[in-house]
Amino acid sequence: MSENVERPMFLQNAWYVAGFGSEIGTGEMRPIRILDCAILLLRRTDGSLAALVDRCPHRFAPLSLGHFDGVQVTCGYHGLGFDGNGACSQNPHGPTAGLKVQAWPVREHDGLIWVWPGEADAAEAVEPPRFAMLDEATAHVNHGYLHGRADYRLMIDNILDLSHIEFLHPALGTPEVRKAKIEVTTDGDVITVSRAMNGETLSEGLAHVYGAAGQKVDRTLTVAFNAPSNLVLTVRIEREQGRTGSQSLHLFTPETATSTHYFYTSSMWREDATREQFDAFAGALTRVFLNEDKPMIDAQQERIGNREIGELKPALLKIDKGAVLARRKLEQMIAREAEEHA
Amino acid sequence: MSENVERPMFLQNAWYVAGFGSEIGTGEMRPIRILDCAILLLRRTDGSLAALVDRCPHRFAPLSLGHFDGVQVTCGYHGLGFDGNGACSQNPHGPTAGLKVQAWPVREHDGLIWVWPGEADAAEAVEPPRFAMLDEATAHVNHGYLHGRADYRLMIDNILDLSHIEFLHPALGTPEVRKAKIEVTTDGDVITVSRAMNGETLSEGLAHVYGAAGQKVDRTLTVAFNAPSNLVLTVRIEREQGRTGSQSLHLFTPETATSTHYFYTSSMWREDATREQFDAFAGALTRVFLNEDKPMIDAQQERIGNREIGELKPALLKIDKGAVLARRKLEQMIAREAEEHA
Amino acid sequence: MSENVERPMFLQNAWYVAGFGSEIGTGEMRPIRILDCAILLLRRTDGSLAALVDRCPHRFAPLSLGHFDGVQVTCGYHGLGFDGNGACSQNPHGPTAGLKVQAWPVREHDGLIWVWPGEADAAEAVEPPRFAMLDEATAHVNHGYLHGRADYRLMIDNILDLSHIEFLHPALGTPEVRKAKIEVTTDGDVITVSRAMNGETLSEGLAHVYGAAGQKVDRTLTVAFNAPSNLVLTVRIEREQGRTGSQSLHLFTPETATSTHYFYTSSMWREDATREQFDAFAGALTRVFLNEDKPMIDAQQERIGNREIGELKPALLKIDKGAVLARRKLEQMIAREAEEHA
Ligand code: FES
Ligand code: FES
Ligand code: FES
Repeated sequence: MSENVERPMFLQNAWYVAGFGSEIGTGEMRPIRILDCAILLLRRTDGSLAALVDRCPHRFAPLSLGHFDGVQVTCGYHGLGFDGNGACSQNPHGPTAGLKVQAWPVREHDGLIWVWPGEADAAEAVEPPRFAMLDEATAHVNHGYLHGRADYRLMIDNILDLSHIEFLHPALGTPEVRKAKIEVTTDGDVITVSRAMNGETLSEGLAHVYGAAGQKVDRTLTVAFNAPSNLVLTVRIEREQGRTGSQSLHLFTPETATSTHYFYTSSMWREDATREQFDAFAGALTRVFLNEDKPMIDAQQERIGNREIGELKPALLKIDKGAVLARRKLEQMIAREAEEHA
Repeated sequence: MSENVERPMFLQNAWYVAGFGSEIGTGEMRPIRILDCAILLLRRTDGSLAALVDRCPHRFAPLSLGHFDGVQVTCGYHGLGFDGNGACSQNPHGPTAGLKVQAWPVREHDGLIWVWPGEADAAEAVEPPRFAMLDEATAHVNHGYLHGRADYRLMIDNILDLSHIEFLHPALGTPEVRKAKIEVTTDGDVITVSRAMNGETLSEGLAHVYGAAGQKVDRTLTVAFNAPSNLVLTVRIEREQGRTGSQSLHLFTPETATSTHYFYTSSMWREDATREQFDAFAGALTRVFLNEDKPMIDAQQERIGNREIGELKPALLKIDKGAVLARRKLEQMIAREAEEHA
Repeated sequence: MSENVERPMFLQNAWYVAGFGSEIGTGEMRPIRILDCAILLLRRTDGSLAALVDRCPHRFAPLSLGHFDGVQVTCGYHGLGFDGNGACSQNPHGPTAGLKVQAWPVREHDGLIWVWPGEADAAEAVEPPRFAMLDEATAHVNHGYLHGRADYRLMIDNILDLSHIEFLHPALGTPEVRKAKIEVTTDGDVITVSRAMNGETLSEGLAHVYGAAGQKVDRTLTVAFNAPSNLVLTVRIEREQGRTGSQSLHLFTPETATSTHYFYTSSMWREDATREQFDAFAGALTRVFLNEDKPMIDAQQERIGNREIGELKPALLKIDKGAVLARRKLEQMIAREAEEHA
C-alpha cells in the first residue's frame, strides 16, 4: 500500500495499469514506481506475472538489483529468495519463517498488465476492465507510453475536456467543432462527455484516416471516465460509405503525487481501415499529446506546485463539468476508502 | 502579491525593475518571476506595457504558453482572453463576468521597466526613480543583466560595501584606496556611503577611462541606497583637465528568497569620454562583478542556506555600517507594511 | 560542532579521518564537509595541519575562497585574517578582539589526517587510533577514497557483514566460504566479526596474491569495529610456506546524514608479498567495492530515504549480529553524549 498517508490522493483498492505485457519477457524483471511505492514486476517461467514491493525486508536492498530465475527472485545482498507471492523461499542464513515481501495482485488481459495496490483480498471481487478493441484479430492496435510530470488528475481533466480541441490543437479545430455543444452524462459510476459535429469537412489528415476525402461527415467524440483513472475516447464517423471510427484508451497510473505513468492505446477495426490509414491515426495521436497536451499539463503542474488545485480557487467554466464530476467521484471513493480504514 | 507569507522578506508596495524596455518588442510577451510570483510582461500594439500574473484563473495554465495579439493574451488551453488590465475580454464558453487575472502596475522610463507587486491603488502615489544619466542624448549608456543565486539583501550589502575593493578586486586597489576612510550618511530615506581617495595614481585601465594617464587625481566613490533595492554608484574624478566621472545603477529585484535579478547600467557623460573609453569602463564593470563579486555572494548564500543571516550572529565591523542601516531601513518598511495588512 | 541537532546521529567527541596527509601540500588549503559542517584543512609552512570552520565570522564567505600564506588564511571578501587556531590575526578595519573562527583539533599519524568535531578540550584525553600496517618501511601500503551516497552506518554494516561475500561478490565465494560460520565477539568497546575457512582452494587471483597457487589453505577474515566508524579487516592465510595475509582499513566519516567520505587503505607486509602481488590485492579491493558494494549500499539508502532504518522494521537475521551490536554501541555513545550536553 502506498506510503503517502498525509492527505490521501490515491485510491488504493483499484486496478492500475503497470505496463504492456509484451514488454516483459519470460524470466525478466521490471521495476516501476506506482502510487509512490517501488514495485518489481516479474514474468515467471510459466508465463504468469507477479508484482512484489521492490525492497528486501532484510536490509532494504532493491530486489531488482538481485537475480530472477523465473521462479524465485534472490536478493543480491545476502541471498534471501522470494517467490512471486512474496513468500521467502530461501534463506541461506536460517529459517524462512516470518520473512516475506509484500505482493500486489496482478492481472494480464488484452496486452495490459494491471496491479492492485490495496488489500489483496479485496482484489478478488473486482476484475480490471476489458477492451474489445485491443483484440488484434479484429482491430489494428497500437500502444505507447509517456511520462507525465503532473498529478494524474490533471491528466484525467485533460482527456475529459473536449473543449480545448480548437485552442490547444488548432490543426484539429474546424468551424463545426467550434459550433458543437458538449454534453455530459452520468451512468452509474461512468461519466461520459461527448461532442457531436454535423456536416463537418474533416482536415486532410483525418479525412484520409477515416476514408472521407471530399465529403461532409457527422463526427461524434465520446469520452467515458471510469474511476480511478481509465478513459475511453471513441470517435464515430458517419460518412457516405457508412459508419467508421476509432478508439483510444488513456490509462493513467500515479507514479508520485506529481508524476504519472500514461499508458495509451489506439485502435481501428480492421474492416474500417488499412494498416497505413491506422498508422497515420496512431502517429497523430502521439504527436498531438506529446507536443501540445503534455507541455501544457506539465506547465499547469508547475504553476500549481505542491498545492491541491482547489486551494487556488480555480474559476469554474461550464466546460469543466465532466472533469468536476470525475474529480468529485474520485474524491468520494478515496474518502470512503480512508474512512473504512480509519 | 507574493505568495511568500511565512516571514515577509520582501517589500510589496514598491517599484522593482522587471527588464529593459528595449528587450520587449511590440506584440511580444516575456515571463519573469518576481517576488516569487510568475509574471508576464506584454508590450501592446500602442507601445504600452502591461504585467499580468502568468497563470490563467481557469485551470492555471501559464498565459505565456498562449498567444498575444498586441491587445489580448489568449490562454492556449481553453481560449480565455485577457486584456492588459487583467479583465477577461473573451470566453468562448460563456460569460466573461467574474473572470480576471491580477495585473500589476507598470511604468517605463529611461529604458527601464518597473512593476509594483503590491496594491495597485498605492502605486498611484509613487513614481519609480528617474535617472538623468540614462539619457542617451547626453550620456553613453550600457546595460546588463546577471542572475544572482543569493538573497537580494546580500547583493545590496555588496554594493553598499566600499571596503571590499582592495580585497575582492585586487586590480582596483591602490595604496590610496587602502588609506581612504569610509563615510556613511543618512539623508531622509537615502543612505549614502562614500570613500574619497586623494592624490591617487589610477591603474592603467582606469587612467585611460578617465583620461588621467600619468597624473595623480582625487577620486570619490559614492553609493546611494534607496529602498527597497536601488543603488546608484557615482565616481567623481578631479584631474588636471577638470572633473570627470561615471555612474552605475545596481537595481535588484528579488526572484525568490534566494535568487535575484540583477539589472545594472553604466553611464559616462558624452562630453567626458569617447565611446571607446566608455566601453572600456562598462566592460570592466561587468567583468569584475561576474568574476569576483558574484562567486563570493553566491558562496555566502550557500553557507547561510535558508537561514536569515541574523540567526547566524555575524560579527559586526565598522565597515558594515551602511549595509546595517540599509537592512534596518528595509526591515522597518517591511514590518510597517505587514502591520498595515494584519 | 555539527549543526544537525534534530536527531543526533553523529558522535561529536570522536576522531574522524579528514583526508590523507600526502594530499595536502605545504601552504595548501582543502575544503571538506564533515558531520554536516564545512571545514577547511590547512597545511602550514611548518608542516603542521589546522582545521577551521570554512565560514568567515563576518559575512559568512567561505574562507576557502580566500588566500592562505602558510600561516594565516585571509578572507577574500574583506580581508579578515585567521591563524590555524581560529584567532583573528588581521583586521584591516579595526581591532581583532572578539573575532574568531572555530578550530577543530587535528592530528596526523601514519599518513592519515584526523579531526575532532566535538569539544576541543575533550580531544586532549584521546588519541586517534594508530595502525602498524601503515608503516611503509615494513609494509606495502595503498590508499583510496570513495564518496558514498549513504548514511555512514549502512557502510559500517556492509564491512561488518562477512555474510554477503558469496552473494554480492560471486567471484570471491568458494564452497568453503559457504560452509564457514560467522563468529561475533565483543571485547571492551571493540566488536569483532570473523569467518574461518578451512582447506580452501582460493580463486586464481587470490592464490596469486597470497602465494598459494595449487594449494589448499586455511583462511580467516576478521573485522574489528571501533566506534564511531573505524574498521580493520584482517585476512590471515595459513599455507604450506607458512602464514601470510593482508589488512585493510575502512574509515568512514559522515559528510551529511545521507553521504559519507570513505577512506580506505590496504596493506601487506613487505616480507609476505612482492609489489606486484600487493598491487593485485589493492586493485581488487577497490574494484569490488566500487562495482559491487557501493551500488548496493547507495540503492539501500534510496529505498530507506530520510527515515531511520529502524522505523522500517527490518527483518533481523543471525548474520546481522555484528552490525546490530555496532549500531547499539554507537547509539549508546551518542545518547550519552547528548545527555551530557542537555
Ligand atoms: S538485504 Fe536482501 S538479503 Fe539482506
Ligand atoms: S486554463 Fe486557461 S482557459 Fe483554461
Ligand atoms: S566576509 Fe570575511 S572578511 Fe567579510
